[in-house]
Amino acid sequence: MPEKNDLALIGLAVMGQNLALNIARHGYSLVVFNRTPSKTHDLLARKSPNDKIFPAYDLSELVGSLKKPRKILLMVKAGQPVDEFLLQLYPLLEKGDVIIDGGNSHFLDTERRAQEAEKAGFYYLGTGISGGEEGALHGPSIMPGGHRTGYEFVQEIFLKAAAQTEDGPCCFYLGPGGAGHFVKMVHNGIEYALMELIAEAYDLMRKLLKMDPPAIAEVFKQWNQHENLNSFLLEISIKVLNYRDPETNFYLVDLIDDRAEQKGTGKWTSQVALDFGVPIPTINQAVVARILSARKANRVKLAAKIRSKNSLPFSERESQQFLTALADGLYLASLMAFNEGIQMLFVASQEKNWNLPLVDIARIWKGGCILRTRLLNRIQLALKNSALEMLIESPEFIHDLQKKLSSLCHVVKIGMENHIPLPSFQGALSSLESWSSSSLPTNLIQAQRDFFGAHTYRRIDREGIFHTQWEGEWL
Amino acid sequence: MPEKNDLALIGLAVMGQNLALNIARHGYSLVVFNRTPSKTHDLLARKSPNDKIFPAYDLSELVGSLKKPRKILLMVKAGQPVDEFLLQLYPLLEKGDVIIDGGNSHFLDTERRAQEAEKAGFYYLGTGISGGEEGALHGPSIMPGGHRTGYEFVQEIFLKAAAQTEDGPCCFYLGPGGAGHFVKMVHNGIEYALMELIAEAYDLMRKLLKMDPPAIAEVFKQWNQHENLNSFLLEISIKVLNYRDPETNFYLVDLIDDRAEQKGTGKWTSQVALDFGVPIPTINQAVVARILSARKANRVKLAAKIRSKNSLPFSERESQQFLTALADGLYLASLMAFNEGIQMLFVASQEKNWNLPLVDIARIWKGGCILRTRLLNRIQLALKNSALEMLIESPEFIHDLQKKLSSLCHVVKIGMENHIPLPSFQGALSSLESWSSSSLPTNLIQAQRDFFGAHTYRRIDREGIFHTQWEGEWL
Repeated sequence: MPEKNDLALIGLAVMGQNLALNIARHGYSLVVFNRTPSKTHDLLARKSPNDKIFPAYDLSELVGSLKKPRKILLMVKAGQPVDEFLLQLYPLLEKGDVIIDGGNSHFLDTERRAQEAEKAGFYYLGTGISGGEEGALHGPSIMPGGHRTGYEFVQEIFLKAAAQTEDGPCCFYLGPGGAGHFVKMVHNGIEYALMELIAEAYDLMRKLLKMDPPAIAEVFKQWNQHENLNSFLLEISIKVLNYRDPETNFYLVDLIDDRAEQKGTGKWTSQVALDFGVPIPTINQAVVARILSARKANRVKLAAKIRSKNSLPFSERESQQFLTALADGLYLASLMAFNEGIQMLFVASQEKNWNLPLVDIARIWKGGCILRTRLLNRIQLALKNSALEMLIESPEFIHDLQKKLSSLCHVVKIGMENHIPLPSFQGALSSLESWSSSSLPTNLIQAQRDFFGAHTYRRIDREGIFHTQWEGEWL
Repeated sequence: MPEKNDLALIGLAVMGQNLALNIARHGYSLVVFNRTPSKTHDLLARKSPNDKIFPAYDLSELVGSLKKPRKILLMVKAGQPVDEFLLQLYPLLEKGDVIIDGGNSHFLDTERRAQEAEKAGFYYLGTGISGGEEGALHGPSIMPGGHRTGYEFVQEIFLKAAAQTEDGPCCFYLGPGGAGHFVKMVHNGIEYALMELIAEAYDLMRKLLKMDPPAIAEVFKQWNQHENLNSFLLEISIKVLNYRDPETNFYLVDLIDDRAEQKGTGKWTSQVALDFGVPIPTINQAVVARILSARKANRVKLAAKIRSKNSLPFSERESQQFLTALADGLYLASLMAFNEGIQMLFVASQEKNWNLPLVDIARIWKGGCILRTRLLNRIQLALKNSALEMLIESPEFIHDLQKKLSSLCHVVKIGMENHIPLPSFQGALSSLESWSSSSLPTNLIQAQRDFFGAHTYRRIDREGIFHTQWEGEWL
C-alpha cells in the first residue's frame, strides 16, 4: 500500500467494485473496505496489476492510509447501514475530511446527515450515481450534492470517472444539502415511467398485434433510430427480447414472472411529489403498476371471473398504422414523464433554494445513466429558456404536442377497446388533457367542500374568499 | 358551573362548537375552552338554556371542573396545536385520565402521542370524526382508536352523539394506537375519489351533452334513487347545482373558481398506500387532479396553445344512452375507490395487528359521514365473508363487474375522444383491467432491471431466483 491513497471506497457489492475499478483505471490509488472480506478478495482478483487498489480490513487502517483531506466514498445500502458506517467513521476523521454517500439514500436522510457532518466539521456529499453495474465500470452519470467546497476536493476524480459525452463529462455539482440525492430520486422516478411505457407498448404488440419477441425487438430497433425515441432502455429491451433461454430455447422474456419488484426510489418520487404539490401521474401510475403486478394471486383469480372480449385481428395495414401511432404515443408519454420529473426539480429548487442547474442536469443525464436518450438534447434546449416552468410549455415541444396528441389518444383507445391496461399511457394522456384545459370540474369540488365543511371558495368574477350557506336543513 | 362536568372540549371552531351542542343535547355537562375567548362566547350565545355547557378560561380551571377519570376532547387543528395542548395538559392530569384527539391527525402522529400518553399513565384515543359541521351537530360518524379501556369511559357519550341508523349508532371501537385516525384517513381518501368522479361525470354532461346545472342536477336526482349510486355527495351536488347566486342570478357553480384546495388527508392516503404496497390509482388520480387544478396559469397558457377538437353534438337518443353508461361507469369507478380504501384497511390491519372490524367500519360509514351511500349496505354484506381480500373479488359484485365494465370503458372512450380529462375514471378503469389480467408486461420490466442492475427475476416455469448475463459488451 502506498503511504497515502487518493480515495477510500467502502462497500464492495458489484456497483462498488466496478466504481473502484473505474476510478483506479484513471490512475488514482484507492483503499477499499467491505464488511465481509470475501468481496474485497473478489475485487482484488478482478483488478489488473496496474490498478492501485489496496485492501483495508478495518476502518482505522482505511482512514490512516488516506491523503488529507481524506475522501471516503460509501457505496453501501441506503438506510441504516449508512448511519452505522458514519457512526464508526466520525471518531476517526478530522475537520475538513470529505464523506461521499454514493448510494440511493432518501434526500431527507442526506439532509439530516449533512447537517450532522457539517456540525462536526466534515464535508458531506450526497451523490446520486446512475448507470447500473456497467455504468459504474465504464462511466456513470454522477449527481453530486452537498457542500461545494467539499465537492471541489473530489471533482477531478468524479469528472474522470463519469461517462464522457460530446457535451462533456456526466457530472456536475447540483446544489447543497440533499440536492444530489433529490435529483437522483427524480431520475429514478422518470426511469420507472419510461420502463412502464415501453412495457405497455410491448404488451400492445404481443397481445393485440400477436407479434413474437424478435418482431417486437425489430420495431424497437426502428424506433431507436429516431431522435425522440432513442434510449438506453429501448436498446436493452431489444437485447432482452432477442435473448433465448439456453436451456429451453424459448424466448427468455416469455418465461419471466410478471411480479415486478422495486427498491423504493420510485415510491419516494411519488410521495415527495405530493409534498411539493407537483402532479406526476405518469410516474405514479408506473409505480402503482409494479405494486399491482406483485399481487398475482388476486389477478389470476379475477382474470378467471372477468372475461375480456377477444380482440379483433388487425390487418397488416392496420398494424402498420397502429405502430406509427404507438411510436408517437410513446414519445409523447415519455415526454410527459420528463415533464413531471423536471417540474419536480423546478419546484423543489425554488422551495429549497437549491438553484438547481436544470440545463446541466439534462446534460449529465445524456450519458452513463439509465435515462439516457437523444430526447435529452431537445430537453436541454428547451430548458435553456430559464423562464420555463414546464417542458410542455416550451416552443421546442408545443408543435409535437399539437400534432401527436391524437396518436396518444388513439393508442389509449385501442388499448381500452381490447382490455389491455395502459396505466402510464393513460396517466400521461389524462394529465396532458388536464394541463390543456382552462376549465376543470373542480369548481364542483370546491362547492361540495364549502357545502359540507365551510372550506370556502374563490370566484371567477370577483376577488376574495367566499362561503355560502347552501342550505340550512340537514339532509 | 356544576361541581364536576362529564367532558371537556377544547377547540371551538365550528366543528368543535357543534359537537359540544350535540353532546349537551344528550344531557351531558361540558366544560369548554378555546385559545381565543371570542369563540367561547359565540358558543355560549348559540347554546339553548338547557344545554349544560360551561366556559373555562384557562386549562387548570377546565381540568379542575371534571369528573374523574377526566375526559378531554381536543378539536384543534392537526399538527403542532395538538402537541402544544398536550404539553400543557399533561402536568394537570392524573393517571387514568382520557384524552381524545378528534381532529384529522396523521395516524403516525397519533401512534407517537398514544405511546407518550400511555407511558405517563393516560389513555389516548385518536378518533376520526366525519360529517362536517352538520354531522358534528346532528350526529357524525365516529371512528375511535386507542386503548380499549380508555374508550369504555367515553363509549356512552360517543354512541349517543353519533349518527343513528337502523343498523345502530355510527360509532365503533376500531383498534389500538393509530387505528381510528388511519380509518378516518382512508375514509377521506375514498371521499376525494368519489368527489372527483362526480365532478368528472358533471364535466361530461356540461361539456359534451351541453346540459345546464339544473339539468345535470335532474340526472343526479334520478341516480340518487338507485341503491348503487345514492350518496350524500350526490345529494349535496344536486343542491349545489340548483343554487343561484342571489346577486347575479347565475348558477353559482358556474362562478366558482376551479382551483381546488385540500387539507392533506387525501395526500396522506396516497403516500401511506405506497408504504403499505396497496395500489389506489382511483384515489391517487383524484388527489393529483386537485393538485393540477390549482396550477391554473399553466393550464390557461397551454389551453390556448393546444387546441382541442370540438365535440360532435349528441342526439337526444345518444345522450340518453350515454347517460345510462355514465351511471354504470360512475357506480363501477366508485366501487373501485371503495375497493382501494378497504384493501388499504385490510393490509394495514394485518401489518399493524389492528384486527380492524371491516364490517362495522362499513356500517358506521352508513350514517353521519361524508361517504355515506346505500352502496355501503352491499359492501357490508360483501365484507361479512371474512376471507375476502378485495371487494371486487366478492360474489356480491362480480356480476356487476362483468356486466358493467363495458360501460366504464365506453365512458372513458367518449371522454377521450372529446378531450375531456377523466383522471379518476381512467385510474379506476386501468386498474380494474390490470386486476383482471393474469399476465401483465412487467416481465419485461423485470428483465430490464436484471439487465442493468442484476436485480434478478423469477420464472413461470420453475422455482427460484435467477440472473442472466444478458450481454457482456457495453452498449
